[in-house]
Amino acid sequence: MIEYDPNRHWLRDIRHLGTSWILRRLVRATAITGVYSVAVSVALIRLDLEGRRAISGTFSLLGVILGIILVFRTNSAYDRWWEGRKLWGSLANHSRNLAIQLDALLPGDDVELREWFSRLLADFALALSGHLRGRVDPSILAGPWMAEARVPPGSPPPHVPAHLARVLVRRVWALRDAGTIDGFGLLATQPHTQALLEVAGACDRIRRTPIPFSYSVFIRLFLLAYAAILPVGLVPEYGYLAVPLVMLLVFALLGLELMAAEIEDPFGLDCNDLPTHAIADAIRADTRQLLGLACNPAAAAPPPYSKVF
Amino acid sequence: MIEYDPNRHWLRDIRHLGTSWILRRLVRATAITGVYSVAVSVALIRLDLEGRRAISGTFSLLGVILGIILVFRTNSAYDRWWEGRKLWGSLANHSRNLAIQLDALLPGDDVELREWFSRLLADFALALSGHLRGRVDPSILAGPWMAEARVPPGSPPPHVPAHLARVLVRRVWALRDAGTIDGFGLLATQPHTQALLEVAGACDRIRRTPIPFSYSVFIRLFLLAYAAILPVGLVPEYGYLAVPLVMLLVFALLGLELMAAEIEDPFGLDCNDLPTHAIADAIRADTRQLLGLACNPAAAAPPPYSKVF
Amino acid sequence: MIEYDPNRHWLRDIRHLGTSWILRRLVRATAITGVYSVAVSVALIRLDLEGRRAISGTFSLLGVILGIILVFRTNSAYDRWWEGRKLWGSLANHSRNLAIQLDALLPGDDVELREWFSRLLADFALALSGHLRGRVDPSILAGPWMAEARVPPGSPPPHVPAHLARVLVRRVWALRDAGTIDGFGLLATQPHTQALLEVAGACDRIRRTPIPFSYSVFIRLFLLAYAAILPVGLVPEYGYLAVPLVMLLVFALLGLELMAAEIEDPFGLDCNDLPTHAIADAIRADTRQLLGLACNPAAAAPPPYSKVF
Amino acid sequence: MIEYDPNRHWLRDIRHLGTSWILRRLVRATAITGVYSVAVSVALIRLDLEGRRAISGTFSLLGVILGIILVFRTNSAYDRWWEGRKLWGSLANHSRNLAIQLDALLPGDDVELREWFSRLLADFALALSGHLRGRVDPSILAGPWMAEARVPPGSPPPHVPAHLARVLVRRVWALRDAGTIDGFGLLATQPHTQALLEVAGACDRIRRTPIPFSYSVFIRLFLLAYAAILPVGLVPEYGYLAVPLVMLLVFALLGLELMAAEIEDPFGLDCNDLPTHAIADAIRADTRQLLGLACNPAAAAPPPYSKVF
Amino acid sequence: MIEYDPNRHWLRDIRHLGTSWILRRLVRATAITGVYSVAVSVALIRLDLEGRRAISGTFSLLGVILGIILVFRTNSAYDRWWEGRKLWGSLANHSRNLAIQLDALLPGDDVELREWFSRLLADFALALSGHLRGRVDPSILAGPWMAEARVPPGSPPPHVPAHLARVLVRRVWALRDAGTIDGFGLLATQPHTQALLEVAGACDRIRRTPIPFSYSVFIRLFLLAYAAILPVGLVPEYGYLAVPLVMLLVFALLGLELMAAEIEDPFGLDCNDLPTHAIADAIRADTRQLLGLACNPAAAAPPPYSKVF
Repeated sequence: MIEYDPNRHWLRDIRHLGTSWILRRLVRATAITGVYSVAVSVALIRLDLEGRRAISGTFSLLGVILGIILVFRTNSAYDRWWEGRKLWGSLANHSRNLAIQLDALLPGDDVELREWFSRLLADFALALSGHLRGRVDPSILAGPWMAEARVPPGSPPPHVPAHLARVLVRRVWALRDAGTIDGFGLLATQPHTQALLEVAGACDRIRRTPIPFSYSVFIRLFLLAYAAILPVGLVPEYGYLAVPLVMLLVFALLGLELMAAEIEDPFGLDCNDLPTHAIADAIRADTRQLLGLACNPAAAAPPPYSKVF
Repeated sequence: MIEYDPNRHWLRDIRHLGTSWILRRLVRATAITGVYSVAVSVALIRLDLEGRRAISGTFSLLGVILGIILVFRTNSAYDRWWEGRKLWGSLANHSRNLAIQLDALLPGDDVELREWFSRLLADFALALSGHLRGRVDPSILAGPWMAEARVPPGSPPPHVPAHLARVLVRRVWALRDAGTIDGFGLLATQPHTQALLEVAGACDRIRRTPIPFSYSVFIRLFLLAYAAILPVGLVPEYGYLAVPLVMLLVFALLGLELMAAEIEDPFGLDCNDLPTHAIADAIRADTRQLLGLACNPAAAAPPPYSKVF
Repeated sequence: MIEYDPNRHWLRDIRHLGTSWILRRLVRATAITGVYSVAVSVALIRLDLEGRRAISGTFSLLGVILGIILVFRTNSAYDRWWEGRKLWGSLANHSRNLAIQLDALLPGDDVELREWFSRLLADFALALSGHLRGRVDPSILAGPWMAEARVPPGSPPPHVPAHLARVLVRRVWALRDAGTIDGFGLLATQPHTQALLEVAGACDRIRRTPIPFSYSVFIRLFLLAYAAILPVGLVPEYGYLAVPLVMLLVFALLGLELMAAEIEDPFGLDCNDLPTHAIADAIRADTRQLLGLACNPAAAAPPPYSKVF
Repeated sequence: MIEYDPNRHWLRDIRHLGTSWILRRLVRATAITGVYSVAVSVALIRLDLEGRRAISGTFSLLGVILGIILVFRTNSAYDRWWEGRKLWGSLANHSRNLAIQLDALLPGDDVELREWFSRLLADFALALSGHLRGRVDPSILAGPWMAEARVPPGSPPPHVPAHLARVLVRRVWALRDAGTIDGFGLLATQPHTQALLEVAGACDRIRRTPIPFSYSVFIRLFLLAYAAILPVGLVPEYGYLAVPLVMLLVFALLGLELMAAEIEDPFGLDCNDLPTHAIADAIRADTRQLLGLACNPAAAAPPPYSKVF
Repeated sequence: MIEYDPNRHWLRDIRHLGTSWILRRLVRATAITGVYSVAVSVALIRLDLEGRRAISGTFSLLGVILGIILVFRTNSAYDRWWEGRKLWGSLANHSRNLAIQLDALLPGDDVELREWFSRLLADFALALSGHLRGRVDPSILAGPWMAEARVPPGSPPPHVPAHLARVLVRRVWALRDAGTIDGFGLLATQPHTQALLEVAGACDRIRRTPIPFSYSVFIRLFLLAYAAILPVGLVPEYGYLAVPLVMLLVFALLGLELMAAEIEDPFGLDCNDLPTHAIADAIRADTRQLLGLACNPAAAAPPPYSKVF
């Protein structure tokens, strides 16, 4: 995610655009539209097919309808992005709250146990970040949790975040059974241990469920048809002035669609995607601090962006 | 549900359109509109009824009003679809969380008990998927739960998901009474056992309650009237150019209505409907893994689509 | 509520329109508008007051503003309707979940106690359905709960659903005090017993609070003024063609307002209102089944509709 | 709040308009606009400044933008009003549920204790109603709670609803300590005792936080500028017909703004404000009944309206 | 935050505008647009490039599309602002509810303990207010909490609100272990102690996550392009009248964007930002009162505004 200060100097931020994946697609599409518009204009004007009728009114109507459909599209994509951000914020909150409860519940001098929990919480966030990007690399996890998984041969690979949550819950119950914490302590940790899998499941839902296929195709077909006939509609009235107008309209409408398609899955590595890796790092630092452990500020290498904008 | 990658190569996805049920209806309706428009145009122009008045303005107003009504319609249908998806995600989350709690609570060597619970949870999701499509085939359930139902003769057939939830709750209380789990263990499972029926009830609500009948009829009447008079309004200004414009407008507006009607009930077998069967399979695999049971990756045969798009 | 299959054969559903209360109002209003428009058109054209100015633009602006106000109106009314539906779904869920818990908690052979609870839950839904329609007829209740109310003379009649919830809570606590269920059993029933009154109160809120009076009057004044001057605005440009256009606009805009006014209170007996009686019947059948009681499928007579559409 | 039947005879409700505060402002503003428009028209036409250009198009664009800004404004104001209504409904629900729990928990013959709780709950609602209107008159409270407050000299006056909630919670814990109710009884009352202050705080938030100042000023500046130049834009095309059109537009747009400003704070004494006093009365009657106390239907004098509409 | 009475005398409030940061930017931008428009008009008219085509229609379409995009932008920014306000209201509610519970639970004569808790709750709000503005000045905290943090050398500075929540939770568990409060007392405080960090995390999320970078740049690019070509579109039709129209359009559209960018982060010191400092003061006063402590109304110096409007 590109971090920027939304209130000032936004012109300076435009420098990011040069490397932008969406912008490149958008600029390419707008340029193609321009070439096409010029061709249509030349054909209509040279062949004297330029009508005398003012027909742009219905094109405005089509544009307005397309505009409100795209706002629906934008809203639905933005809601996913924002819900994803809320889920990761909630993951950080639950991790911190769980660390605070454990800090009060665990014996003050059992550093090993505190290490264990802080590592597990940090690894859960890391594993979820990887899981949402397709696969989890066990080597980035700080603890040897996967060794315990004992996947039977022939079984599919385990759901890593779910497995980590399982390890956590087992340990908490074991502490209760051993008398280290009592029933009320267990109750105090439960909302937070349960929340881990709820966050993971909800993120999975967002990742796996784009807008229904029909809408996706419908909007793009409509956009394509509209861009195709727009020069035919505007040239008779506007002459060559139609070319920049068509390009600006296509820029606006196609831009909405492309941006919506990009933020719809907020867990990738695009520049608009959520900084899940950075949040996982913050969870590691905060839980260590709240459990009273030394925290070495290992500079987390920023993950490479596969595309920008 | 058709799975697709929303960011690239969408043109390739259009190949699905050929077998699409909604698209066929949409294309048919658009074609009929085209024929009708041509007839109106010919009549108006031949009979020299072509006015000299520019009257498309009010047709634009009607189109805008129709557009914002259809966006309301689309929003309400999409909200049901998305709520349905959330409910099934929540079912998976609760099943996994329950499996994690049971894994910590149940004796580690009582494989039979663990099998029992994992089977029940998987069957609940399967039964709910069937229930939402009209009927539950008992033969697809892995456990003999229905035998316990003892439906008195003359009674209606039981609500299968509710019956399964009942069997589950009875067993948990029995384990508490037998001392296998204690009161705190019971409290830890309760949010999840209660959630099963809440999900089932909310899905039922979505399935049984389409948009109020008045709106459904009103929108379609309005669409029909608009499509009927649109050529009359556009031909005087646009001549034969009115035909493709009318067809594009009908494609846009009717498409919104047809897609909304289709995703309104997200639990069927349409290509936009939710992959409830696949989610039930995932629940089966995950709960087995989390309860420490071997998981044979029985390739779940994909359910046939009754219609596509 | 008229049940219909939203995906097919909707033209067949139009047969319901003939008996529709809203449609009759709408058709009457549209017809009056038509007569008025004809009168205005004749006057303007005969008296040669027909201007040469194209003035429909500002009328379009007014129409668009009115349209977006009416979408706000529609959204707010629809939200109430949908919230009402959710509340009744939640009532069914809580009744079922409570029945499941009681089934596990109550002694298996105490049929009388199970009967008592299933009757109370069914009666609560019935009483709430009556309460939301103005009054509760005690004779439709299966149990003699009201006899216990002991309303002091001079007091107003009791709030029947609240009284039933009170009877239920008293019994649960009495069972706890008698040792039939323990504290954890009590905790398991509490979310459900509390939900009964929450549903009742929220339904009451929806029923008693229509959209603020100012908005209701403002929208209707605006509609009236708009319909009154619309012919004056359209006749100079459109001639007699203005008459059907005015009628279609009034049909669209007034239809939105009338439908919103009707679904705003979803607990009546209109055809768009919620099938509260049918849901109460389903609660009766389900709770009996879940408590292991025989369930005679007494065909619940459908309540008469006071008006249709 | 004016109560009205939204489905019929709304024309009769217009009689309330004569005494309406907002309507008077609206009519005054519309009349001023009319005078101003006439002056502009006369000037433009007399001085022959009437252009030949059709320039109303951009004025429509400005009107549409203003319209969608005002719908945003209306939505945000309406959400506060509706949230305020939900909060008071929730207060009534929690009061009733608390009364039901206390009815089951308190000794049946301790009328004094039951009186104490029912009085406190009714007074809480009354005090909150007063608090939201600026100050609480202690003389309307039925119990001598404020005497216990022992405000130290020099301190600001206490937050009355918070103080009442404190008295309530103290008493419940004292009953627990005295053994009248046990821990599970305490747990059963806790969601309801906590909800009291949550409702109070949320109402306070709505009352104290109107829409951001920038938006309020921006919208009114925009409205003022638009109304000022509208005649200049419409007279060249419409002649004197511009005057009623300008007045109708100002009526529509300014009406939205004034109504939004009025319902934004729903706790005053305007006719659209919530009937908090009546809800407090209902809470008093219901809690008495649910606690088994005689309820004298003291006709609660309706609070005077400071302004209507 | 500027406090104002939304219902009257708003013209008087305009006096705040003179010192407004956003207004100055808006006025500057509008003035630049004016100069630019004059230049374009002069060039087009002098050079006789003034077309005879009426081409403002497509500019209206672009304006409407820009308008609905800006309403999406406004909604998303306003939602953050309002969510921020809700979070601080919820912080005040939880602080008050916690104070009420502690008041009932703590020994009545242990003034020192009560002082401790009231100080901690007030400091939490103060620290959160500072944290959201970039850094926490430990000297404004009333208690020596940070001394306990014992940050190991080399570690980053601690997250102050999280540390305060940790101190609070430790103390509550210590009181339980010492027998001052029992398990049920602990359960009663837990929802409130957990809420502190949830509020802090959610505020952090709002502060750190502006609208996706793509949207921010896209909207501003679109605005810039639109403002640049607007005079070219309007001058042919409107002549010099285009200048004020262009300026008003830019004022409206750019104003929406600037205001949205400003309220998006509601925790700064702008005049639209939330009065977090004042809320923290209110929490201090209320918790002291509810814990029975003397409350000296130390006039909290209002924080300086870095910019107004």
